[in-house]
Amino acid sequence: MAEVIDIDDPADPRVDDFRDLSAADRRPDLPGRKGLVIAEGVVVVQRMLDSRFTPSALLGTAKRYEALAEDLADRDIPYYRASAEVMAEVVGFHLNRGVLAVAPRPAALSVEEALAGARTVAVLEGVNDHENLGSMFRNAAGLGADAVLFGDRCADPLYRRAVRVSMGHVLRVPFAQLPQWPGGLESLRERGFQIIALTPNPAAVNLATAMTGERVALLLGAEGPGLTEEAMRATDVRARIPMSPGTDSLNVATAAAMAFYERVRSS
Amino acid sequence: MAEVIDIDDPADPRVDDFRDLSAADRRPDLPGRKGLVIAEGVVVVQRMLDSRFTPSALLGTAKRYEALAEDLADRDIPYYRASAEVMAEVVGFHLNRGVLAVAPRPAALSVEEALAGARTVAVLEGVNDHENLGSMFRNAAGLGADAVLFGDRCADPLYRRAVRVSMGHVLRVPFAQLPQWPGGLESLRERGFQIIALTPNPAAVNLATAMTGERVALLLGAEGPGLTEEAMRATDVRARIPMSPGTDSLNVATAAAMAFYERVRSS
Repeated sequence: MAEVIDIDDPADPRVDDFRDLSAADRRPDLPGRKGLVIAEGVVVVQRMLDSRFTPSALLGTAKRYEALAEDLADRDIPYYRASAEVMAEVVGFHLNRGVLAVAPRPAALSVEEALAGARTVAVLEGVNDHENLGSMFRNAAGLGADAVLFGDRCADPLYRRAVRVSMGHVLRVPFAQLPQWPGGLESLRERGFQIIALTPNPAAVNLATAMTGERVALLLGAEGPGLTEEAMRATDVRARIPMSPGTDSLNVATAAAMAFYERVRSS
Repeated sequence: MAEVIDIDDPADPRVDDFRDLSAADRRPDLPGRKGLVIAEGVVVVQRMLDSRFTPSALLGTAKRYEALAEDLADRDIPYYRASAEVMAEVVGFHLNRGVLAVAPRPAALSVEEALAGARTVAVLEGVNDHENLGSMFRNAAGLGADAVLFGDRCADPLYRRAVRVSMGHVLRVPFAQLPQWPGGLESLRERGFQIIALTPNPAAVNLATAMTGERVALLLGAEGPGLTEEAMRATDVRARIPMSPGTDSLNVATAAAMAFYERVRSS
């Protein structure tokens, strides 16, 4: 049973891990500093509780405690109960989701662990926008993609904004960093993955017919620059989404969703 | 040829239409007030110039003028040239896109005008998030959907944030307000549209086989509440995207993108 501890003083050191959530220099989710993982809102906190990210504490209103009481029944985690006003003082702004959980960052998964049993994975290069990363994980979870691998120059998927935009799915969809780039793709090929680059290039194969492998790794680059030529050359197939002329490429998370959808569309 | 007019004083009344862009009570894009339409950045300004939204003025740096000089060669529109600092004082924050265009809101298109020649349209109910609206138009443009119709309780697609997130495509993809809801759907049926509701309901028809009409109208509701039962009953088919159990529904613009993609996937 979670122990409920009332917090009346915003300066109480027991809620230090929730302090100044949006302060650029001391926010608790900075990888180089505390590197904590923050879940916001009842649904995302529930997903954290159901993940390999084990919360060390929660901070929330009395009302949100009621919503989570059942989930917390078997957990030995302190629930710091505070008014919305005290919470706002602690975190630095008014938080309308009413509850936060904080977890230490567990050991990173190996590529092998992230790929266990995977049939469809996304491999990202240069995706450095937290919102796009979050959307990517949300779409992966919704459309049954199994894992996300990071190549070169990607942002931290455990940043607070990424966790929130993913609706907590970044805590549940496995991810790992490839040790070399793009050399690390070879290890995917050895595991039987067909390696497919998504590109707006009209000369590429139509996405609808490109994914012939039983296991598929989809390479996606950031909007604008796209994949580097070096990464492109390491792939088996270049695939395109049929786009209208004179438009921009799709948002990277949306492009990924099309490919994930292709993998499940007949199911 | 656009006339270049240097602005050194942020209080200059000639740039009043660009003033206080993010002020809730007096921003120039409020429909009840000036109701102006704002384009930001070179690409979106170019799209505005190429649309039915005719700018009355531009405000931007000298550098951005160079980037737009060719597009403005045949136009009789003042270009108010200012430093980044003066621009920031006028609009109320630092604007890193460096150029703005402002256009009066033209007469709304009729449903008939918006649907001229259309094969695939989205019809929205309760989509009141400007970012989702913007993404919807961007995806429509990219994937060849022809128009967007508004049913009940949708946000203003010409709000500055919606224009920006759409990358200017809200200025080019036709849209119109249905006069009744959901009664107005009948006029689509009379025009030969198959009316399809997107729903996460697992009992619905798979999206991959649902769209059999030559002309298709896709009904989408907001994330969370989804479509009202009243709207659902006015449709011909209920279609689902194959989703993983235990996940949330997709973002409404992403769900729309799947359906738009289905319409072009074999092209």
